[in-house]
Amino acid sequence: MKKVLAINSGSSSFKYKLFSFPDERVIASGMADRVGMENAVFKIKLSNGKEYIKNTAIPNQAAAVKLLMDDLKKFNVVKDLKEFAGVGHRVVNGGEIFKDSALIDQKKLQQIFDLGELAPLHNIPEATGIKAFMETIPSVPQVAVFDTSYHTSLDPIHYLYSIPYKYYKEDSIRKYGAHGISVEYVARRAARMMGKNPNIVKLIVCHLGSGASVTAVKNGKSFDTSMGFSPLTGVTMGTRSGDFDPSALRQLMHRTGMSIDDAVDMLNHESGLLGISGISSDMRDLIESKEKRAKLARRIFINRVVRYVGAYAAEMDGVDGIVFTAGVGEHDSGVRAGVMSYLKYLGLKPDYKANRTNGEKFISMPDSKVKALVVPTNEELMIAREVIRLTR
Amino acid sequence: MKKVLAINSGSSSFKYKLFSFPDERVIASGMADRVGMENAVFKIKLSNGKEYIKNTAIPNQAAAVKLLMDDLKKFNVVKDLKEFAGVGHRVVNGGEIFKDSALIDQKKLQQIFDLGELAPLHNIPEATGIKAFMETIPSVPQVAVFDTSYHTSLDPIHYLYSIPYKYYKEDSIRKYGAHGISVEYVARRAARMMGKNPNIVKLIVCHLGSGASVTAVKNGKSFDTSMGFSPLTGVTMGTRSGDFDPSALRQLMHRTGMSIDDAVDMLNHESGLLGISGISSDMRDLIESKEKRAKLARRIFINRVVRYVGAYAAEMDGVDGIVFTAGVGEHDSGVRAGVMSYLKYLGLKPDYKANRTNGEKFISMPDSKVKALVVPTNEELMIAREVIRLTR
Repeated sequence: MKKVLAINSGSSSFKYKLFSFPDERVIASGMADRVGMENAVFKIKLSNGKEYIKNTAIPNQAAAVKLLMDDLKKFNVVKDLKEFAGVGHRVVNGGEIFKDSALIDQKKLQQIFDLGELAPLHNIPEATGIKAFMETIPSVPQVAVFDTSYHTSLDPIHYLYSIPYKYYKEDSIRKYGAHGISVEYVARRAARMMGKNPNIVKLIVCHLGSGASVTAVKNGKSFDTSMGFSPLTGVTMGTRSGDFDPSALRQLMHRTGMSIDDAVDMLNHESGLLGISGISSDMRDLIESKEKRAKLARRIFINRVVRYVGAYAAEMDGVDGIVFTAGVGEHDSGVRAGVMSYLKYLGLKPDYKANRTNGEKFISMPDSKVKALVVPTNEELMIAREVIRLTR
Repeated sequence: MKKVLAINSGSSSFKYKLFSFPDERVIASGMADRVGMENAVFKIKLSNGKEYIKNTAIPNQAAAVKLLMDDLKKFNVVKDLKEFAGVGHRVVNGGEIFKDSALIDQKKLQQIFDLGELAPLHNIPEATGIKAFMETIPSVPQVAVFDTSYHTSLDPIHYLYSIPYKYYKEDSIRKYGAHGISVEYVARRAARMMGKNPNIVKLIVCHLGSGASVTAVKNGKSFDTSMGFSPLTGVTMGTRSGDFDPSALRQLMHRTGMSIDDAVDMLNHESGLLGISGISSDMRDLIESKEKRAKLARRIFINRVVRYVGAYAAEMDGVDGIVFTAGVGEHDSGVRAGVMSYLKYLGLKPDYKANRTNGEKFISMPDSKVKALVVPTNEELMIAREVIRLTR
């Protein structure tokens, strides 16, 4: 029995899930929050359901890693570091360098730090997290799993912006996308459910969570995707704006005195469903609400997904299946029904009755030319599987 | 016989065309350039083909209008101001106020100046141009024709951005679109060619010129359109970027030291086909070129048009006709063929042979479920017709 940690590091936190393999069971999970502060929090939840919370100063990520290791030993979850196959770290941007997940050594760690130039809010904390694990438990392999790797198959036609070419060559400005790990898994699973060869099928994967993206998957490869240089653009998200006119950004900066950093922060953290509704970034709250702007936010969200599904059906000159996944995609039957209701022109016959409940299944009628499916994703498990694959 | 001037004012220039009605013939055309400078230029071309160029200081727009009036008299094109039905002015942004073209009085002129807040690069020079005509020839009606009016039919779902709602309410940040005059004309004409009631048909109009946009026209009204708050976004254009990730803008500003004004200027004037190719903003130059990046620019342009056509086919749950118009749309058979080649999934059967030549016609096969058409537009004539309609 091997054990794998899946880690998602933020600037002052990390979330973890510990899996046992090959049964892929979660045997512990939790998080360290407010790392670097006096009033930090460390949580661990065991497979028996018990949860322990510690309030203590955690000076840095290395100290948080040490707390985790101590707790795993204390609660008899892990007795020896040798039980670890490795630790998998989610990294937002692998640039054009990392076309696959990677076992991390000092050189690769530096490369991830360097890519922080492209995604400073994400890559720097993530690289810092990897470094903390490498220093605290040097005998355990560390694996980086990139949100962008799956999308390195994009053609320049799809990843280049229509700006001076030198900004791509000199400053690496291009589309990188995200959610690759999830989309790859979900697309493969959907093809199998459809009885199709995953390498001869056109799919559109709607990964709709608090972050949301739509990806065209053609013959097993990412063909185009809605997120761009950063995970800000594409469809409306929980707090992210999705597509926005840079001229309007200038206008807002001049009128409000916001700096470009303030303005992009606003687009990342105060926009999306939260910004439109003024109520919540969470679809469940919007369903509950009777406010007009809550309904408006839902309808805008559905529209933006429809736009990208339509765009990608055109880019691939057709589509065989539309796949819904992640929090909203898996659990919000209203959003799925809303999206499907626009796609009858493709030959999609929605099975609205099947759609009423959740879980892995078809939500199109048996004679539907284009299929619609729900396929649950599990990004932490995907990360852990990557560790198993790379350390085998 | 009535005469109508159609005017397109820039910050230091204006272009004009003089039409006679009802025969809609151009009886004079030309421009004033470098207005406000010592080395200004004034051009007039008569219907006999003769062109006269004057190099002289033109201190302001009013002086340019006076030069124009003097020349029209000198060359016997207009003998009396009473011959003018009116002067039509293109205005980029009519905001939420101007849902139709308008006869301009002092109050409305002020409103156009005030809307300059939304589109300073365009509205201020345009309003200044109107003012110059009002002062120089006060007896002649002045009509403003707005690029945005046709799109005031958009639903909030399509015109709102996914940002904090207050920025719409307080700062008028929303999608306004452009090319409305052209799209309205072209859609109406296409419906007639298809033998359809213009109020019961789904069309997608690709207005592809040096500025380019794609508009979904549902039952005679603009339903959604690719340009946004400003004419910067949507598809790739001659020198404009189309859609771009605001995070990438921040990245470029930090790396190069550009201000937000510099950066948006770069997106407006150095991007698009010119930026990608490094050669030209003109499709004709790119066709001639053997450079790889010239071909890349063309393929990116085609891709972005396909994206929006696909998106709008989905938003309308289907489409009856795809219409090409404006410089590139009317004259670049390669772009048209490229776009059509992606749309077979819609039931479009391209007639590649018909497509080889230009002019108003069908470019889809007779049994094509979805039609494709070329319909020449003429924005100056549309502006002049608006003058006739409003002064009748």
